[in-house]
Amino acid sequence: MVGRRDYRGNGVMVTVDRWLLPDGIEEVLSPEAECIEVARRQVLDLFQSWGYEFVMPPHIEYLESLLTSARYDLDLCIFKVIDPQSGRQMGFRADIAPQVARIDAHTLCRKGPSRLCYAGSVLHVQPRSLSSSRSPIQLGAELYGDTSLSSDVEVISLMLSMLQLVDVPDVHMDLGHVGIYRGLAHAAGLSNKVEQQLFIALQCKAIDKVITLTEDVPVDLADMLRALVNLCGGYEVLAVARKCLANAPAPVLTALDDILVIAERLLARFPELPLHFDLCELSGYHYQTGVVFAVFVPGIGQAIAQGGRYDYIGADFGRARPATGFSADLKTLITLRRAEFELLSGGIWMPDSTDAALWQQVCRLRGNGQRVIQALPGQSLSAALEANCDRQLILQNGFWQVSLLAY
Amino acid sequence: MVGRRDYRGNGVMVTVDRWLLPDGIEEVLSPEAECIEVARRQVLDLFQSWGYEFVMPPHIEYLESLLTSARYDLDLCIFKVIDPQSGRQMGFRADIAPQVARIDAHTLCRKGPSRLCYAGSVLHVQPRSLSSSRSPIQLGAELYGDTSLSSDVEVISLMLSMLQLVDVPDVHMDLGHVGIYRGLAHAAGLSNKVEQQLFIALQCKAIDKVITLTEDVPVDLADMLRALVNLCGGYEVLAVARKCLANAPAPVLTALDDILVIAERLLARFPELPLHFDLCELSGYHYQTGVVFAVFVPGIGQAIAQGGRYDYIGADFGRARPATGFSADLKTLITLRRAEFELLSGGIWMPDSTDAALWQQVCRLRGNGQRVIQALPGQSLSAALEANCDRQLILQNGFWQVSLLAY
Repeated sequence: MVGRRDYRGNGVMVTVDRWLLPDGIEEVLSPEAECIEVARRQVLDLFQSWGYEFVMPPHIEYLESLLTSARYDLDLCIFKVIDPQSGRQMGFRADIAPQVARIDAHTLCRKGPSRLCYAGSVLHVQPRSLSSSRSPIQLGAELYGDTSLSSDVEVISLMLSMLQLVDVPDVHMDLGHVGIYRGLAHAAGLSNKVEQQLFIALQCKAIDKVITLTEDVPVDLADMLRALVNLCGGYEVLAVARKCLANAPAPVLTALDDILVIAERLLARFPELPLHFDLCELSGYHYQTGVVFAVFVPGIGQAIAQGGRYDYIGADFGRARPATGFSADLKTLITLRRAEFELLSGGIWMPDSTDAALWQQVCRLRGNGQRVIQALPGQSLSAALEANCDRQLILQNGFWQVSLLAY
Repeated sequence: MVGRRDYRGNGVMVTVDRWLLPDGIEEVLSPEAECIEVARRQVLDLFQSWGYEFVMPPHIEYLESLLTSARYDLDLCIFKVIDPQSGRQMGFRADIAPQVARIDAHTLCRKGPSRLCYAGSVLHVQPRSLSSSRSPIQLGAELYGDTSLSSDVEVISLMLSMLQLVDVPDVHMDLGHVGIYRGLAHAAGLSNKVEQQLFIALQCKAIDKVITLTEDVPVDLADMLRALVNLCGGYEVLAVARKCLANAPAPVLTALDDILVIAERLLARFPELPLHFDLCELSGYHYQTGVVFAVFVPGIGQAIAQGGRYDYIGADFGRARPATGFSADLKTLITLRRAEFELLSGGIWMPDSTDAALWQQVCRLRGNGQRVIQALPGQSLSAALEANCDRQLILQNGFWQVSLLAY
């Protein structure tokens, strides 16, 4: 019988040899590496059970493929090299989502919706935060070709199901919509420069700055832009927003409606989910086009999973396709996992023998999922214990038999 | 019932968008990506059943960690960047084996043997051959800390078991030993320069050049060095070598004995395996220290899996440890696979409904491994067919039931 040992993460990815490895670049050993592998398989199987096709974009591409007009923000994140074969600049991917958008828009080129998923390493020149890795394992799913809220609800539901599966406790989700600020800013006729400054001021909830920047804006729009700073909180925020933004342009009201519908449909599926609304928290504002969402857990400043709608992402590759999706870092999820991992343990110690019958038997045992470790010359039974074996193969009456290890 | 569809590779990895992707850099789509994922899991599970621990070295490291004194040959293979955080040069790994050697020598620092395995992407500045990928998925296993032939037999057996598992047909194996040429060259007192020239001449089996380069060598050693050119072929080569090299220095005779023992023990385990001996084919000569081996299949010029003994590999990291292991490219193995892949297919089409009972039922179905795809607004049942669904969820007598799709 194969025993099982429990492994519980301590909330911190075990990294070693920091002095030997660059900052933020980790190597992962057993049992963490096994935990990551187990979770990776679970998540990919989940994605498949929702109909998402697995794709493997390359680790390196021509820079212009990685830096689409929508994602120029990635420029400073990407390690760059010259390809000696083409003389062109290549980059190591810092985000897989734009690669998958290229695959949908250019390679697959389907008429109907496509659902794609991925899991792989990315590299960042700078960590996203002080404690972040520069080599996360990004996984995510994207739904292309459909503009409906059903797509948004589907990918958010998939993201939440993933977090349930990996068993990350105490998650709460922020929901927003870039169409609200974008609609107001457009109606106010802000210059690009002021729109950017105001955007930054709103992110910081710097109300004084927001007031100054909206001094030249018609008073009703200025009031609405200023109100955004306070439009964050629980479900009640949506009702307050309805009042504050009652006279807003139509796209803003549509965005508000969208948030409400998405929230209602999510709560029907995940009634326990703490939902938080923030109508001016707009990470990814310059490439997102609709609903945006992010999942947080207590004690971690960064979102542990996030996404949103970004229509027209494929335009640089010839087809502007509606798109909505999410991504997360598997290494981070593993450190937050509540459940203990059940890793295979125990094993069978086999002698260093050339007996063909022993080899046949060992092949059978391994084929049945047993872990069988061969003694090396000079190793005593204490090595079997070190190798985590609890049984051994011994010759009894001419047959190789598995028996308990007697020390 | 979930149906299964068969997928058979056509011997060539399907790559797309060559004009958009750098030469030798592939993206992999479904179903190839799924096949790679299935094989990856099978191989890692096999490694684990032999007691090999999974490790995940980083994709990028300080250059000096990748370019140990034993592996300066990798210098031209490695993409290099400057780390803005440390100002030091980093490289993208072109070979995972030296990273694992670092982990064994420096990080784990165990007294006894350790068995480690890995699977991950590597990048090569130049392809190894005209048709090679520059972004293989390297997988391999390494056994550290034991100098015996049992270790060599174990890793070769594991490599062959991997090829059986992935079902690569018609493999044959070359077996050699760098100790033979090294022992003769040492006894002949060749200068480094001449040793290198002679080495190259032997690789090309350029007998005229070999004769010229050994003109100043004592006649018995010269005869033996020249004989190496012809010491390749089947089992009979070992007997011929015994005669030709009868007066060779002791290390040479020991190396010959080693090959014989390893071959005998392998043939007891793999009686069908075509074994080929080549006493001067010495890929990796400058870092290998003992037996070397490579597996070939008809029609492919490059080895599809290879390895050998390279003791002292960890010296640059503080501990010279005996080591023996192998590696292969998963992408190549997949294209050679004989068996048809059994990939999940079929699926259940669900309507775009907000019914909570439907959601519960779908969660159960997906949890049981079923693939359930949600209709998006406006999609007709023909979309279900395009999404490879063969059943649908319909409301009958107030209950959601799975029924066959009727078009």
